[in-house]
Amino acid sequence: VENDAVTVIPELLPVLRGIVGESAVLSVDDVTAGYLRDWTGRFGAPSGVVVRPRSVDEVAQVLHSCAAAGVAVIPQGGNTGLVGASVPLAGEVVLSLRRLSDVSVDAVAGQVLAGAGATIGAVQSAARQAGWAYGVDLASRDSCTVGGTIATNAGGLRVLRYGDTRRQVMGVEAVLSDGTVLSHLSPLTRDNTGYSVPALLAGSEGTLAVITRARMRLVAPPVPSAVAVLGFGAVDDAARSAGLVRRTDGLSAVELFLPAGVELVRSVVDLPALPPAAAYLLIERDGDADGLASAVADLPGVVDAAVADDAAGRASLWSYRERHTESIATLGPVVKLDVTLPLDRAADYLDAVDAVVTGVAPGGKVWLFGHLADGNVHTNVTGVPEPDVHAVEDAVLRLVADLGGSIASEHGIGVAKREWLPLNRSAAEIDTFRRLKSALDPAGILSPATLLP
Amino acid sequence: VENDAVTVIPELLPVLRGIVGESAVLSVDDVTAGYLRDWTGRFGAPSGVVVRPRSVDEVAQVLHSCAAAGVAVIPQGGNTGLVGASVPLAGEVVLSLRRLSDVSVDAVAGQVLAGAGATIGAVQSAARQAGWAYGVDLASRDSCTVGGTIATNAGGLRVLRYGDTRRQVMGVEAVLSDGTVLSHLSPLTRDNTGYSVPALLAGSEGTLAVITRARMRLVAPPVPSAVAVLGFGAVDDAARSAGLVRRTDGLSAVELFLPAGVELVRSVVDLPALPPAAAYLLIERDGDADGLASAVADLPGVVDAAVADDAAGRASLWSYRERHTESIATLGPVVKLDVTLPLDRAADYLDAVDAVVTGVAPGGKVWLFGHLADGNVHTNVTGVPEPDVHAVEDAVLRLVADLGGSIASEHGIGVAKREWLPLNRSAAEIDTFRRLKSALDPAGILSPATLLP
Repeated sequence: VENDAVTVIPELLPVLRGIVGESAVLSVDDVTAGYLRDWTGRFGAPSGVVVRPRSVDEVAQVLHSCAAAGVAVIPQGGNTGLVGASVPLAGEVVLSLRRLSDVSVDAVAGQVLAGAGATIGAVQSAARQAGWAYGVDLASRDSCTVGGTIATNAGGLRVLRYGDTRRQVMGVEAVLSDGTVLSHLSPLTRDNTGYSVPALLAGSEGTLAVITRARMRLVAPPVPSAVAVLGFGAVDDAARSAGLVRRTDGLSAVELFLPAGVELVRSVVDLPALPPAAAYLLIERDGDADGLASAVADLPGVVDAAVADDAAGRASLWSYRERHTESIATLGPVVKLDVTLPLDRAADYLDAVDAVVTGVAPGGKVWLFGHLADGNVHTNVTGVPEPDVHAVEDAVLRLVADLGGSIASEHGIGVAKREWLPLNRSAAEIDTFRRLKSALDPAGILSPATLLP
Repeated sequence: VENDAVTVIPELLPVLRGIVGESAVLSVDDVTAGYLRDWTGRFGAPSGVVVRPRSVDEVAQVLHSCAAAGVAVIPQGGNTGLVGASVPLAGEVVLSLRRLSDVSVDAVAGQVLAGAGATIGAVQSAARQAGWAYGVDLASRDSCTVGGTIATNAGGLRVLRYGDTRRQVMGVEAVLSDGTVLSHLSPLTRDNTGYSVPALLAGSEGTLAVITRARMRLVAPPVPSAVAVLGFGAVDDAARSAGLVRRTDGLSAVELFLPAGVELVRSVVDLPALPPAAAYLLIERDGDADGLASAVADLPGVVDAAVADDAAGRASLWSYRERHTESIATLGPVVKLDVTLPLDRAADYLDAVDAVVTGVAPGGKVWLFGHLADGNVHTNVTGVPEPDVHAVEDAVLRLVADLGGSIASEHGIGVAKREWLPLNRSAAEIDTFRRLKSALDPAGILSPATLLP
């Protein structure tokens, strides 16, 4: 079965094959499902053409041909997205950037130049070998790519310390939908010669241009650190402490989890019980255990503290937080809503979200954890029958917006949340986004179902 | 004498007075020169109308009226610019944002919300009082403003540690030239709901929108630090060391200066001689003198090192670097060219620039200093007669571009350098900038002579 778009314009297929070669155009019969469904399993269509160019010139030719034919294109990296932005919905051409996977480190300047298809794990590894580190780290590191993490402005575990992906990117090579190649891979940390296309493309979710290469700054390698898990008697003390502790220098993580999550993790992973508490914060900071203990000594409402500065102890404490995702996945389908709250409303959210969910899906069970110093709360809901999913999303996202939060913390808007974008953005802002979209993609072929309602 | 624009459309003046009030529209007879000439003294015209709104609504009405009348507008903050981007050239309306000067700190979240007209000094002071710090610092701190530093993506003394202004800005309120108000002053550090207008406006030099307010992240207050001044036997060892030392954690400054500059500073300021060297680096790092001494112990070519970790000693060492600008100013008019070199070409630049300057202006004397770990070299030239200024600029900027550098490190392109923008940017990039400009300012009234050639 050919997909719709190719049925409509059968002449495009040989053109694409002419550009990238026979074997680099996969049609529905031979593509693997990995290109057509993202990590949620919810988004994507079992139809489509996947094109796998090997160079920026091939990317430019593919885009030019698709624009001429009026066929929509979905740029795709590691396809680890959770909001449906990287998969076809109705026969779009999937433009896989994975073959553009070169990575080279400039050890003197402390920078990395990488193809859009290089994984973050490959970037981290190359940086480490050169005596540096890459400032972004996230659980999907061995699958997600440079291009995808820029397009979604990925956050992850080290935002508190190094900022989001936009703050790492120094320059990009990118292709507009008409085939124009923009290349400014400047190695210069101070370079103000015109508008920042990299900063605009960061977070644009593939709707403005196709990133083919990027230069990112590296950071000094990690120094020895200590990790504490603090138990709090009340959720709002944990939320307040997540704010207060941000003033401390040398922090690299402040992560929230809750007793129910600990119990679930312990049912999957062999870990000792933690002393009872209403909420836990994991805090990581440069230096030794004594330094960390004194830095957190005045936080309000701490009822218990475990601190470690040896590798095994740190890893063990991190397990309570890091093993949440896989433990939750054992419960069946998960509605994943990734949101940010203002720090002074985070406790209100943590208190209210259970009732909001069970109000529309009585069997729903909410699992909360996240990068709380940044206000991030990964809201996972299990036990929701498919017909109730939309109502759960709607209820949670409205609660977030009512509390002044963001409906898209670090996973993007994509297809999944675009109907709710007006909860966070005014009509004037959305109109401005459309003006920018039209300026760079006048044909409207790049990821047309993503982001803009 | 009324200026041209007002002569052309005399009906605009009463409209502007109706919006902001009689006393907030200054015409040529009563304006102070401070609005019409920037810090260079080279740019600006002694004609023009200055409008001083007190609110975003007044800004929107002023822009709407000017757009309707087809009159160009120059947004202005502290008017400390060095590239002619903040002053009228031919009767444009100067839109001074200085009255929008509110500053408020959220001490829990570690953020500041400030009007475009607040000075960086006021922001720093408010942050300090709340137990935080603002990551951007520069010599013009008590005059330059929030809006101006965002519009130029100001760098300054702490880029190495905290990044440029774009990296501090979390959200902006801004007005498009048609009067549309865009406001997203989100306090959320993770918020990916659409294109990043703040990141795009940072560095746009007033050509895309008028910033009226901004929210910036704050950083942990400084911890005790040590300062070293290292003398190097060869310029290229200093340049190499500026790269190598970047790998050290806790750095806050790596600044270059040269023996001729030290001699000049010592002729103006009472400071002890430094041991002879071909080049000096000032390095500041968290921790004590011993820690810094061991961090720099392996740098190549060090012939002398002075280290201090007490306040007086640190300040004394900083004087050699910080007093350059005022010392150079005693020599008469200065051609200021602010450029960035790739670190591995910085020594080539330092070696070649004298001959390039004297080749076109035989009496020219070059003074070099800057934020060398970022490749920045402030290139000041004295002794250049006015007719030779353009030839000096052309020769230096071409040398920079030939070495792979940026012609605009942190002062912007403005009016001064726009003819040389094609040295750094391709026709496709400049065309893309024009597309973005047309999308946000279709009437083309915002700073029409700035940035784009």
